Amino acid sequence: MKFRWPHRNHAKAIAERQAYLRALPQMEQSGQEIFSWSLGPERLASFQECLTGEMVLPVGVIGPLVIDMGIYERDEAHQLQEIGRHADRVFVPVAHTEGGLSESMLRGMRVIDLAGGVKTWLLQDEMTRDCAFVFSTAAEAVRLARWCAQEESHLKAWINNPDHQDKGAVRAAISRHAQLLRIRTRVVGPVCHVLYGFDTQEACGPNMMTRNAYALNEYIVNALSSEGLVPHQIFLEANLGGDKKPSYEYFAGGHGKTVVAEVVLPDDVVARHLHTTPQGLQMLEWVGLHGAHASGMQSFGFTPASAIAAIFAATGQDLGMVGTSSMAQATVSRTPEGTAFSITLGGIEVGTVGGGTQLPHAQQYLQMMQCQGPGSSKRLAQIIGASALALEISAAASMASRGSENFFRTHWQRGGLR
Amino acid sequence: MKFRWPHRNHAKAIAERQAYLRALPQMEQSGQEIFSWSLGPERLASFQECLTGEMVLPVGVIGPLVIDMGIYERDEAHQLQEIGRHADRVFVPVAHTEGGLSESMLRGMRVIDLAGGVKTWLLQDEMTRDCAFVFSTAAEAVRLARWCAQEESHLKAWINNPDHQDKGAVRAAISRHAQLLRIRTRVVGPVCHVLYGFDTQEACGPNMMTRNAYALNEYIVNALSSEGLVPHQIFLEANLGGDKKPSYEYFAGGHGKTVVAEVVLPDDVVARHLHTTPQGLQMLEWVGLHGAHASGMQSFGFTPASAIAAIFAATGQDLGMVGTSSMAQATVSRTPEGTAFSITLGGIEVGTVGGGTQLPHAQQYLQMMQCQGPGSSKRLAQIIGASALALEISAAASMASRGSENFFRTHWQRGGLR
Amino acid sequence: MKFRWPHRNHAKAIAERQAYLRALPQMEQSGQEIFSWSLGPERLASFQECLTGEMVLPVGVIGPLVIDMGIYERDEAHQLQEIGRHADRVFVPVAHTEGGLSESMLRGMRVIDLAGGVKTWLLQDEMTRDCAFVFSTAAEAVRLARWCAQEESHLKAWINNPDHQDKGAVRAAISRHAQLLRIRTRVVGPVCHVLYGFDTQEACGPNMMTRNAYALNEYIVNALSSEGLVPHQIFLEANLGGDKKPSYEYFAGGHGKTVVAEVVLPDDVVARHLHTTPQGLQMLEWVGLHGAHASGMQSFGFTPASAIAAIFAATGQDLGMVGTSSMAQATVSRTPEGTAFSITLGGIEVGTVGGGTQLPHAQQYLQMMQCQGPGSSKRLAQIIGASALALEISAAASMASRGSENFFRTHWQRGGLR
Amino acid sequence: MKFRWPHRNHAKAIAERQAYLRALPQMEQSGQEIFSWSLGPERLASFQECLTGEMVLPVGVIGPLVIDMGIYERDEAHQLQEIGRHADRVFVPVAHTEGGLSESMLRGMRVIDLAGGVKTWLLQDEMTRDCAFVFSTAAEAVRLARWCAQEESHLKAWINNPDHQDKGAVRAAISRHAQLLRIRTRVVGPVCHVLYGFDTQEACGPNMMTRNAYALNEYIVNALSSEGLVPHQIFLEANLGGDKKPSYEYFAGGHGKTVVAEVVLPDDVVARHLHTTPQGLQMLEWVGLHGAHASGMQSFGFTPASAIAAIFAATGQDLGMVGTSSMAQATVSRTPEGTAFSITLGGIEVGTVGGGTQLPHAQQYLQMMQCQGPGSSKRLAQIIGASALALEISAAASMASRGSENFFRTHWQRGGLR
Repeated sequence: MKFRWPHRNHAKAIAERQAYLRALPQMEQSGQEIFSWSLGPERLASFQECLTGEMVLPVGVIGPLVIDMGIYERDEAHQLQEIGRHADRVFVPVAHTEGGLSESMLRGMRVIDLAGGVKTWLLQDEMTRDCAFVFSTAAEAVRLARWCAQEESHLKAWINNPDHQDKGAVRAAISRHAQLLRIRTRVVGPVCHVLYGFDTQEACGPNMMTRNAYALNEYIVNALSSEGLVPHQIFLEANLGGDKKPSYEYFAGGHGKTVVAEVVLPDDVVARHLHTTPQGLQMLEWVGLHGAHASGMQSFGFTPASAIAAIFAATGQDLGMVGTSSMAQATVSRTPEGTAFSITLGGIEVGTVGGGTQLPHAQQYLQMMQCQGPGSSKRLAQIIGASALALEISAAASMASRGSENFFRTHWQRGGLR
Repeated sequence: MKFRWPHRNHAKAIAERQAYLRALPQMEQSGQEIFSWSLGPERLASFQECLTGEMVLPVGVIGPLVIDMGIYERDEAHQLQEIGRHADRVFVPVAHTEGGLSESMLRGMRVIDLAGGVKTWLLQDEMTRDCAFVFSTAAEAVRLARWCAQEESHLKAWINNPDHQDKGAVRAAISRHAQLLRIRTRVVGPVCHVLYGFDTQEACGPNMMTRNAYALNEYIVNALSSEGLVPHQIFLEANLGGDKKPSYEYFAGGHGKTVVAEVVLPDDVVARHLHTTPQGLQMLEWVGLHGAHASGMQSFGFTPASAIAAIFAATGQDLGMVGTSSMAQATVSRTPEGTAFSITLGGIEVGTVGGGTQLPHAQQYLQMMQCQGPGSSKRLAQIIGASALALEISAAASMASRGSENFFRTHWQRGGLR
Repeated sequence: MKFRWPHRNHAKAIAERQAYLRALPQMEQSGQEIFSWSLGPERLASFQECLTGEMVLPVGVIGPLVIDMGIYERDEAHQLQEIGRHADRVFVPVAHTEGGLSESMLRGMRVIDLAGGVKTWLLQDEMTRDCAFVFSTAAEAVRLARWCAQEESHLKAWINNPDHQDKGAVRAAISRHAQLLRIRTRVVGPVCHVLYGFDTQEACGPNMMTRNAYALNEYIVNALSSEGLVPHQIFLEANLGGDKKPSYEYFAGGHGKTVVAEVVLPDDVVARHLHTTPQGLQMLEWVGLHGAHASGMQSFGFTPASAIAAIFAATGQDLGMVGTSSMAQATVSRTPEGTAFSITLGGIEVGTVGGGTQLPHAQQYLQMMQCQGPGSSKRLAQIIGASALALEISAAASMASRGSENFFRTHWQRGGLR
Repeated sequence: MKFRWPHRNHAKAIAERQAYLRALPQMEQSGQEIFSWSLGPERLASFQECLTGEMVLPVGVIGPLVIDMGIYERDEAHQLQEIGRHADRVFVPVAHTEGGLSESMLRGMRVIDLAGGVKTWLLQDEMTRDCAFVFSTAAEAVRLARWCAQEESHLKAWINNPDHQDKGAVRAAISRHAQLLRIRTRVVGPVCHVLYGFDTQEACGPNMMTRNAYALNEYIVNALSSEGLVPHQIFLEANLGGDKKPSYEYFAGGHGKTVVAEVVLPDDVVARHLHTTPQGLQMLEWVGLHGAHASGMQSFGFTPASAIAAIFAATGQDLGMVGTSSMAQATVSRTPEGTAFSITLGGIEVGTVGGGTQLPHAQQYLQMMQCQGPGSSKRLAQIIGASALALEISAAASMASRGSENFFRTHWQRGGLR
């Protein structure tokens, strides 16, 4: 009989797994940190199955990040409106092992501070789930697409109203936290992709939108069957939803929070603190943008993923979303006041509740950034956008020095001589 | 005077940072785990600047992953040759907080076991650094491109020979571990991008290839100046190198390890353990592949990034590389023996030495997978490819059930009712 | 003094150019068809400057294309509504020199006929112009984006109402034929791209939308200046408009007519007339779709550009738009009634008035297809979509035969032995 | 019985088709140019089936294009070597109906002349055919990939040697004009794509490379069968070959001729003849490049397809290749001597023999440009690259004027008031 590995997290199962792994011959000469606990299984068992231990990452905190960010609410038409702005000084936790990264981000934050701070805006806040309705013919798929266009407002009223009588069996499954913003469709042969766009509030939201998409699908199937339109199959996600795979479709927004961050650096700050020139920075941007284009790179930036990953790891975000959340378009340009740096991050997929954000350390790091309660996910996304910009500035400056000596030296020293 | 945050990691600086953060008003009602230590600063201080504490992630171990993997060496022409194969049972550590993920990967590994194991191949193993030589005109850039084509073998002999007399001042900077495999060029107007492809052996290698690229640039500048060809500027990386940003250029290989993993599942295994049908799985693949195409998605797969990120986090890999390392093309097809599942991961960027792999837990998890010593990075990459395939199989099966009930149920239960 | 080539088309200038070219030494041994006229300069002089003669392409006509197409009108909210359907038999002119192409399209139309005809739908009909407003900072660009969101309905009312008092100096420039449908914006650093989507009715419309975009820009500049928001520069087109360059942005629609065409072929038609099997066709589609994905190909299809180019050349369309108008996603799938073939063409950029459609031959070919008068551009686009599908079917069938013998034989025989 | 449209081109069939079409009710009030002949069926019948008449396009000739172009030969390793350079003044025929286009290209050529001429280089010259070998498993596909890597030199020797004894039955099918340059492979699950790269000399070459690919496939199948490796199916083209569909794979070269063209314009030429400033041109390039990136546009340029299509139409090239042949990356940059403009066209797919180039007018236009005989296709490609650059310069200058007034005025006047 095949050996079966237990997946449950009761004490006995955890002990069995640990014992089995300890007994592997290769573990004899190994340290035992992976079998001891800092937090303990009772605080970790709810996060994943097959628990055996922990992973400890070093965390640095960098700041202050001087930031002027927007405060947003949706109007009656579900449009995001900026209802105010808020200036703050934030300390940002980063969990990573890339020598030089924290120092580089710190340098970026320092020049931002010297320039009076970074400004951020939230342009869009939406999570999309793509459910594929498979028919025999495009004729049927077109019919569903038209039906959705006509019924969009009814579908929104139905799913978004918690007291709607007509929800029946799926009622329990519907999350009140995911508000349906819009429905788009895409016909690909006999398949009609129905793209549900949700506001998932303080959560990143993949689970809650899956639940509500499921309920909407039930509603649609019931409504269509009376018209003789019955799909053979429905897939709850069929790749037009953008989950964890970078795509052009969501480069501009629609899967996470679309944030713009900008700072204008006076020339003397560039000279004294970044040790380069505005011309050098512009030249680098021009060469790098053409390079990105030549490379078939969807994003343009220097290294936003480094900042995104480090903050995601510290705050318990889903690390599988690092690639999608790092899709970016950065700019360097001249203004009368100095050199403007901006970055647009198309879809930062973050939450302040649910998932890994409930980890003890994550909770405390979120608290440190005052990212708890209503509006906190929008605040967090803006802090992340601003932090990514800080890194862009510093990394670009290192690269823009002649022969990239600074960049080289930093990596050589910090990365060690290997 | 502006407050300046210290970046060094001596005891006093760490204590100062901790004290400052503890004193923030919002930290009063917070827990204090982020200021206590499991491993302690002495074991973490070398990994990043600005250290203040730790992040603890839960780790599960799943397996056995029954795998038949290739063993590779380079021939004299630097071509990768498979010199043998090796069958093994591996237990894989995953650090993440996505409810259901470990169990799903475990299910995938179980059906792989029932099908006799997964086979993996390493097709390419190369890390590329793109140095941009900026001239005034394309005429000059074309000259450099031609020069590189002619001098490629000399450049390789020079950089790859540790005893070469002629290395001068840059000699100390050159890493013996990064072997230059080839040089390509790309002319974009007045810029000649020189793409150095390295074998970085057991390291992921961004730093060592930066060092050797720097030395090569010095060599080129010296050689060209005698011909009157002088670049205005050299950038050590200009976006054709693929660092941390997914690109088509490296979708097929050239920035990390290109791994193919495959298993053929008998129909009864699909029916009994995956609760779906070969036809359902093929239909899902077809709909999802068209969906990916419609979405402008470079990759095609279901959720490789989830598996990649979880193993990366457990083994101390660079989390900023999750997006690039997850570029994938998966297939589902019919064979006389059952349903074939494959995945090609274009560039898994991993090492078993250097960087975060030196973290105590990472070392032990690598040890658990016997990923230490010569050949270990190739082994690790194949384990990752096979693990990603296990997740693809299980996730696809959940999705392929009618109405995706399994997928929904898994996410609902595991993800909690939020 | 430098020789200057005259660009005007009066008789003397044409004669001068012809005389000069005739006198070139290399023209001595050449034929003289390029200096003689079939239509004559008086009928051609208005189409382009520097006229010297003609180009004569062979035209074939193929049919009947049995088609069931939609008839569309916009409702008050500018949404396209299908108000009826119309069945027809059409003969399609194709100007090209690719041996085998006409015969292949004819075979496709024949099997469509045997299957009862092809159905087409128009999903979207819009031409977009992207005007870039360049500011100093992203802060200003965000302001314009918000302003546009608020003022969209006013801008539409102003530009779409021919009698609007307030149009001032630009009034004469505004085309009544281009109706503004919607305004989107995209902030890229200090630049706000304003994307105007127009219905250009029977014209392809690039010129009329340029004129109206120019007028709208004037309006916006005036309105903003009172708020102290003044762009440094406005570019009338800045690459987010999709002109003549394929892009993901318009793969799904928004730059031309989005047409879906579909036919279901019974198995006996596939066997007897296409000499292949449904399984062979599905296998080809699967391999080709994965191949397209691996290739970084935006479109998926076999050879839509061949059909598009041939009909464009015969009907006087802009041949520079062949690439963009050929963006396609084709599908092959099984239904109870046989094998379903579909193609979606994201943006067929055609007109039946204006530009090259005024050429004598083009006029007559359009007449042959009854593509004149109101609704004719929508009709033409659907005929093109259906014709492209006919070619896809026949070309796929040739390719799907074992070893692609049919495809090879066709190209060998028709293409000549070179 | 279904009516069947004849496809042959003997006199009776042509007459029958004409008579049928003339009798269509809608043709009564139409002109009859499409049924009369300028060249006559005897000179056109070999180009396509279903012939019924002609299409007459207006042709302008513009010039002189002052060009300094490379002369190339392959060395023994098949590498393209520049063996000399050649300066010339060329007059370029353009067939199109876009008002303002000829005049704009003429303006571009004039400023090129004033700047001392344009320089061009040919960086690559290769046509690729992708044959897909379909197996049951990736294991088999990997085996073929390895076999191809080992046998590449034998395969080249076999196909490229016209006297090779061992060619057997396929010998007659092999074209001596297509020389195999290299073989690459790409494994996608159970499919091994074999990418044959050919030098097709003076022909564009799709047919000749299809024939030789077919012969190579036969050779491979025979060789592999002795090793027990038998594909289920071979597709002669499976979308990694880049035919008529723009792809990233061939953006950088490998499907046609890769040409770079460059000119440096002195500031006074920009001011006096282009009525703009270097700064304005650079700003436009920056905004447009970011716009292209934001748009998911593979190419970057202003309107290369307009020039490509017009020269293709005049010289009998395949108009279905306009999209692929227009893939471009253009640059604008500053040099001490003025503003450098460059364009790289990744794959210009042209020939001077075969296909539509045999049309009487095409022959004469090619003669006018002295594009006949050995090396003529390389010459033609460089002329096309230079002409595209001329248009880029002029179109960019129109756009770069404040508010794009010039661009607007040109299009308004030339395009007519519609």
